[in-house]
Amino acid sequence: MKILLDLHGGDHPIDEFIFGCVEALSLCANLSLVLVGDENSAKASLDKVLLDKAYNKINRDRIEFINATDVVTNEDVPTDAIRNKKESSMVIALEATKIREDISGMVTAGSTGAALTGATLKIGRIQGVRRAALAPILPTLKGGRVCIIDGGANIESTPEFLEQFALMGSIYMQSVYGIEKPRVALLSNGTEDKKGNALVQGAFPLLKKLPINFVGNMEAREAISGDYDVIVCDGFVGNVLLKALEGSLYGFKGLLKGALTSGFRSKMGALLAKPSLKKAFKPFTLDELGAAAFLGCSKLVAKAHGSSKAGEIKAALLQVHTMAEANITNKIKTEIGKIITN
Amino acid sequence: MKILLDLHGGDHPIDEFIFGCVEALSLCANLSLVLVGDENSAKASLDKVLLDKAYNKINRDRIEFINATDVVTNEDVPTDAIRNKKESSMVIALEATKIREDISGMVTAGSTGAALTGATLKIGRIQGVRRAALAPILPTLKGGRVCIIDGGANIESTPEFLEQFALMGSIYMQSVYGIEKPRVALLSNGTEDKKGNALVQGAFPLLKKLPINFVGNMEAREAISGDYDVIVCDGFVGNVLLKALEGSLYGFKGLLKGALTSGFRSKMGALLAKPSLKKAFKPFTLDELGAAAFLGCSKLVAKAHGSSKAGEIKAALLQVHTMAEANITNKIKTEIGKIITN
Repeated sequence: MKILLDLHGGDHPIDEFIFGCVEALSLCANLSLVLVGDENSAKASLDKVLLDKAYNKINRDRIEFINATDVVTNEDVPTDAIRNKKESSMVIALEATKIREDISGMVTAGSTGAALTGATLKIGRIQGVRRAALAPILPTLKGGRVCIIDGGANIESTPEFLEQFALMGSIYMQSVYGIEKPRVALLSNGTEDKKGNALVQGAFPLLKKLPINFVGNMEAREAISGDYDVIVCDGFVGNVLLKALEGSLYGFKGLLKGALTSGFRSKMGALLAKPSLKKAFKPFTLDELGAAAFLGCSKLVAKAHGSSKAGEIKAALLQVHTMAEANITNKIKTEIGKIITN
Repeated sequence: MKILLDLHGGDHPIDEFIFGCVEALSLCANLSLVLVGDENSAKASLDKVLLDKAYNKINRDRIEFINATDVVTNEDVPTDAIRNKKESSMVIALEATKIREDISGMVTAGSTGAALTGATLKIGRIQGVRRAALAPILPTLKGGRVCIIDGGANIESTPEFLEQFALMGSIYMQSVYGIEKPRVALLSNGTEDKKGNALVQGAFPLLKKLPINFVGNMEAREAISGDYDVIVCDGFVGNVLLKALEGSLYGFKGLLKGALTSGFRSKMGALLAKPSLKKAFKPFTLDELGAAAFLGCSKLVAKAHGSSKAGEIKAALLQVHTMAEANITNKIKTEIGKIITN
């Protein structure tokens, strides 16, 4: 199973990416990698990492390099970057993923806008899929996972888009996370069937007819409660939901840290409580979550957080590996085909 | 200054409401109250509370009672309840607030939908106001306050609604919270000027022309950062934002509590850290926040949380008192008048 990694566009230097790659290779025997970026730096970094006893048994043949001399940045206008930055690691990565049959999917930590635009323009959608959607995974308070779809790819949506997002999200959580009957809910301003704006009200009857476990409307308050496996919404609302949760989580962690370091008494308390605090909040750390899958493209594309370090890169690579093993692209193709012919 | 309180529709018994009233009266010398609800229970409850030494100097003449024999519940369809439940405390409260010049505004902890519908149908909007909007206040991580407008009243909005929400929110934070130049931002999926769905893109140039301190687009991640004073959005998105923040706060507190009570070592740690934890999270408790103002009606209406206890009722009454003293209704009338004639 070969996965491609775009080495640029994230916040951290190439060493973090290489370290993440080697970690993933050491954990997953049938994984091999294609690394796209500054080949010399990547090779030098690999030499360093492989000196480590823990990794010196890893076979270098499991890593292929493709050189790229340019980088797509967050300041680039996505469509312009994909069209004009032909030597960038992201464009070369997308093209290699599209063309090469031996590559099952790719991971990038670069610009979300460029990755999504590029995936649609260069790789293309699965036949019948109206729009590809970003499907980030969040931890829940019950220790599980919940998928938000669309997490920000489609700022304007139609009820028919949401219908397909629901189907793709359900397939994803079933195949990749092993949830037998994912509980799929529509994000609304109340739980009653009639609640919602025109988009949600239009989507409700469409979701009800799908061959999924649609459990009705839900409120943002329950997003991470663990009562739902898939939350369906348009990309604008999904973006607000994700960022609100992210912002408040970081904010509260900051408050907690501040409180536990203010004065001797609190510091002593923190020392005692540290192990159980660490355990409780572990699921709410970035590197546990992997990347956000971009569902609906004919090859797997996953967007790792821009601030990804080795742990997140490792998680993202393993996640795309799992998605590829689960043959999720074909499953989506088949199920979307069924609702289209119905 | 006379404020009316609807005694029913909240989750807690009338004693909590009466206790909150007496607390507010004891804190604010020029406040008097009109209480609408089951008069006998309310009077009996008042008799009990006034036995307390702390309150036995409060003059009973500062409280007027209006009897009501019915209650609007959360199960009622809002428009039906407002039209048909003529003996309900909420309908009687709305009508008294509308008609009586001596009443400056009202507080209800009842059904949000019924309160908003009722305020529009019974009390009516200020001349020139397109839609009244719910303006809840959240604490920020920097110890300040931020207003979300619209927090859920208008599920479908137009750019022109958002324009007026921005103006009303700015006036509110200026007059009631004393912020000289409130930083007003438009909630979007990115900070760049061109970001947003059609609604946000349509509203952006309108907000830019307003005589307010419009600071551009902002992301949900920064909602409680303290970098903004007013966040403008449609009611659907505002509802998602509020409930996501609320859900994560409660969830986070739950995790924290769980961690700090798991085993002897953690409990000891919690004991030591408790004072500083309590201090850090104090702004994030409900009773510090008061009620959500419903801005744009010709009389002041504020919606207290359904789960309000005495502390929240007290805060809500004092908040409406402050709004009335600041003459916010007239200010909105004047400023809306200016943008309409422009």
